Amino acid sequence: MLKKTEQYEERTIESKPIFAGKVISLQVDTVQLPDGGTATREIVKHPGAAAVLALIDDKMLVVEQYRKPLEKFQVEIPAGKLDPGEDPIVAAARELEEETGYRAGSLKPLSAFYTSPGFADEKLYVYIAEQLVKGESRPDDDEFLNVEAITFEQAQQYIREERISDAKTLLAVYAWQLYRLTGEI
Amino acid sequence: MLKKTEQYEERTIESKPIFAGKVISLQVDTVQLPDGGTATREIVKHPGAAAVLALIDDKMLVVEQYRKPLEKFQVEIPAGKLDPGEDPIVAAARELEEETGYRAGSLKPLSAFYTSPGFADEKLYVYIAEQLVKGESRPDDDEFLNVEAITFEQAQQYIREERISDAKTLLAVYAWQLYRLTGEI
Repeated sequence: MLKKTEQYEERTIESKPIFAGKVISLQVDTVQLPDGGTATREIVKHPGAAAVLALIDDKMLVVEQYRKPLEKFQVEIPAGKLDPGEDPIVAAARELEEETGYRAGSLKPLSAFYTSPGFADEKLYVYIAEQLVKGESRPDDDEFLNVEAITFEQAQQYIREERISDAKTLLAVYAWQLYRLTGEI
Repeated sequence: MLKKTEQYEERTIESKPIFAGKVISLQVDTVQLPDGGTATREIVKHPGAAAVLALIDDKMLVVEQYRKPLEKFQVEIPAGKLDPGEDPIVAAARELEEETGYRAGSLKPLSAFYTSPGFADEKLYVYIAEQLVKGESRPDDDEFLNVEAITFEQAQQYIREERISDAKTLLAVYAWQLYRLTGEI
């Protein structure tokens, strides 16, 4: 077992707000180091997000959209930010329906992780959705996307082509592969 | 196949620099939407990072450190930011040695992904290291960490306890599980 060493914690000496936006905020904290020195930490605050591995028979639902930070299109599992105070499973169901038009008869937790703990507090909750029923998609006003259901082999091809190349979707494809191999997830 | 629809691209109308730090920078872009409207995008620029799934017999090397954005300790695979112009595989070898003291006889690409494409351009390159030889660890001046080699069962336990809960380490544990099941990675 690793030991948790109290003196390794980084106590905040000063926290300086830099920016408060629609999605994220940014602050720079000055912290006390264990050796008595100080350091600064650039910290992005994010409301958290939910994503869905939605399986219809032997296919996975994905959306393709333009990702401005990358200046390119990406194919990803449906996902979106949590509304204030929103339960992640509610956000997952909402985003699935808004982005793809599908409602899930079953929605179970698959994983939850911090996307980038070195500089951001964003936590992403991933669910697995089954028993899907088709309805009508209603993307956000500033959201433009294509929806498709792809096979496991297509997912692997998209990964090789780097059309799928984000943490949550790679993780979902790994989980799907394990599900296919072991029947468990 | 999904189609790439040219008019879905988000053309930049204005880009406003907000902050330039040691690690990240922040800008707010105003973009043209396909329906003629506009929207703002809050974008964090990051130099990219490299991480290592380092296997010694049936154990994986992990480091425990305090993650200020989360205000808690996390157990993660060794990782660190790319230096300017640095090849990710060189960064992976460097971070592995600095953080754990181990040198890798073999270092192969495992995965590469965007951690959070909704608001950041950070790309993380993950390598698998084998044939490890012990040397001396040399963490950065502001880096304080514990190193341990854990079994697959310990890794699963740490995931249940949320001591492991970041994207790259969860992805590495999935890859390790597939490696154990199939002999391939």
